[in-house]
Amino acid sequence: MTTPAVAAVLGEIHPPAEVLAAAAHAHWDRLTKPRGALGRLETLGARLAVIAGRVPPPVPAAPAVAVFAGDHGVVAEGVTPWPQEVTAQMVAGFCAGGAAVNVVARRCGASLAVVDVGVASRPAPHPLLIERNVRRGTANLAKEAAMTGQEAEAAVLVGAEVAAKLVADGADLLVGGEMGIGNTTPSVAVIAALTGGPVEALTGRGTGIDDATLQRKAAVIARALRRSGPPDNPLDLLAEVGGLEIAALAGFYLGAARARLPVLIDGVIALAGACLAVALAPPTAAYLIAGHRSSEPAATAALDWLGLEPLLDLELRLGEGSGAVLAVPLVVATAALMAEMATFHDAGIDDATTADPATTGG
Amino acid sequence: MTTPAVAAVLGEIHPPAEVLAAAAHAHWDRLTKPRGALGRLETLGARLAVIAGRVPPPVPAAPAVAVFAGDHGVVAEGVTPWPQEVTAQMVAGFCAGGAAVNVVARRCGASLAVVDVGVASRPAPHPLLIERNVRRGTANLAKEAAMTGQEAEAAVLVGAEVAAKLVADGADLLVGGEMGIGNTTPSVAVIAALTGGPVEALTGRGTGIDDATLQRKAAVIARALRRSGPPDNPLDLLAEVGGLEIAALAGFYLGAARARLPVLIDGVIALAGACLAVALAPPTAAYLIAGHRSSEPAATAALDWLGLEPLLDLELRLGEGSGAVLAVPLVVATAALMAEMATFHDAGIDDATTADPATTGG
Repeated sequence: MTTPAVAAVLGEIHPPAEVLAAAAHAHWDRLTKPRGALGRLETLGARLAVIAGRVPPPVPAAPAVAVFAGDHGVVAEGVTPWPQEVTAQMVAGFCAGGAAVNVVARRCGASLAVVDVGVASRPAPHPLLIERNVRRGTANLAKEAAMTGQEAEAAVLVGAEVAAKLVADGADLLVGGEMGIGNTTPSVAVIAALTGGPVEALTGRGTGIDDATLQRKAAVIARALRRSGPPDNPLDLLAEVGGLEIAALAGFYLGAARARLPVLIDGVIALAGACLAVALAPPTAAYLIAGHRSSEPAATAALDWLGLEPLLDLELRLGEGSGAVLAVPLVVATAALMAEMATFHDAGIDDATTADPATTGG
Repeated sequence: MTTPAVAAVLGEIHPPAEVLAAAAHAHWDRLTKPRGALGRLETLGARLAVIAGRVPPPVPAAPAVAVFAGDHGVVAEGVTPWPQEVTAQMVAGFCAGGAAVNVVARRCGASLAVVDVGVASRPAPHPLLIERNVRRGTANLAKEAAMTGQEAEAAVLVGAEVAAKLVADGADLLVGGEMGIGNTTPSVAVIAALTGGPVEALTGRGTGIDDATLQRKAAVIARALRRSGPPDNPLDLLAEVGGLEIAALAGFYLGAARARLPVLIDGVIALAGACLAVALAPPTAAYLIAGHRSSEPAATAALDWLGLEPLLDLELRLGEGSGAVLAVPLVVATAALMAEMATFHDAGIDDATTADPATTGG
């Protein structure tokens, strides 16, 4: 079912050598701090070392954010109060530099690219805009497949291509974001199908909807999944109930894994893309870092399914990649700690936690 | 009981105008994002606005970290596997720039000062070291008062003075840290006394101790609190079962509040200082931002007592101010979001979440 181009990407993704995790933890234990005192940052540092294939891992110096935008025919079902035009307006906002993700990216020194992979109207050209529109918005997934299999694959390849371009330009830490009015609906559909979670429990309020809209949204998702039936493979699922920016995000994560670089995941839409990427190429999971826990219920289901514990938990539900970019300083600080902290040996200090506790209690 | 110098500091602390919180939330609602989509960062931004007395609040440009160091006579009771000399060795490490807090402070552009307020041996002079030693280590709080009331007040004033110095040098966001072998023991004692929580449940493993040491530590804390009896006031409690760096941290938070600046709190030792500061001058609470939730149980008791929800929860238990400094980029990003994001009006977008949901569902 997979085109040769997509198959080529999948074939170039290899798991990193997990054996380096032990060396990374041994490195942490040589640094001037009690064992394990940096908690989850030590786990993160071991992950960065495994991905990089060296201890200590390099300190990211060029984080790069790509925001993928797409529209959704399912807005016809009344799943969101926002009109579809807001997608294009926000694309213009990303280009103008005034959206949340722009502000946070500037603060952490990350570059930002905006990718039109599926916006309904053609955006005005802009230096930050990468025009790779596959289709001007999906069909209404409540009634028919959101897109064809070929379109889904083309959008996946856009994401992989953008990742490759950012890496060629020097990026050493990737962050995926998205914009698309209505896109929590396909995201919950994808996550429900892959995790097997109940649609009602996984459906959240997205950008802020009332009870009636919430019920309608859950019903639409359930109907779409009944219509499409159990998918034969992740690309079919993507074509049936997904979205173009979700496909591109999946491809972006595949591209990061192919380049053996860490990639930060944002909220529920990004997580839908990440689940698809892992379904397509399981070794991709080793390159994923969860930026934050969105307040959308499907985000937690996806995080659990991926086996990821996010760095931040700030009840964010904005998207754009904003929550993932907010976690960039933690990733950079973790690598810097591994690279720059003095060792007990350097400092001439005996590490009490390596000794027998029975002889060192006093 | 309070010296005129301490009373003068307390008298200069005033609550900020909380009324500005509503204006801050109204400002958030004008920015191009769904209402409330930035979750707890919106609450943080409102806090920054209240503290600064303006909307949007200024973006911190000069965060400043002060690490207060002191030693503890209670190490004679075998409450930690680390020898007391490690306090002085780590002070040398902070001056050399190789400790965790140095690395993280460099990454977020924060200055760092090291303050000897109670180290047992005299540290070598260094440009980063502020020498304000009040006493070369406390007495053993299991057997007698850790310090005199005068010493406690002198150490509080050191912290307030350091805050004032940093502010005079241009600091606009303060962060307190500490170093002191054995200092989780007095911290738990202070927090247990102020919150009324049970000593056994509040006592944690600090830098990593075995079960026997943990039991001994809890017994020592319980004994100290029985010995000292119910304190008449926070300064008596501090003198009886506290520590010199805990006193200085309390003074540092008072100094931040006096200067009307936000101050980030670190883990359990810093929280003991924060609880004392709020006990001494309740309006101080309005200026405190909790950087992270330490894995020490007394940290959560103190956060609850202070009514603070921390920004990070990464199972850190290092101290030095490291967890608070890791949260600096979140504070800076929050203020930047408020200052730099486009408004719906600027972007020419209608804010769907201000409209009647009944008319915008489709």
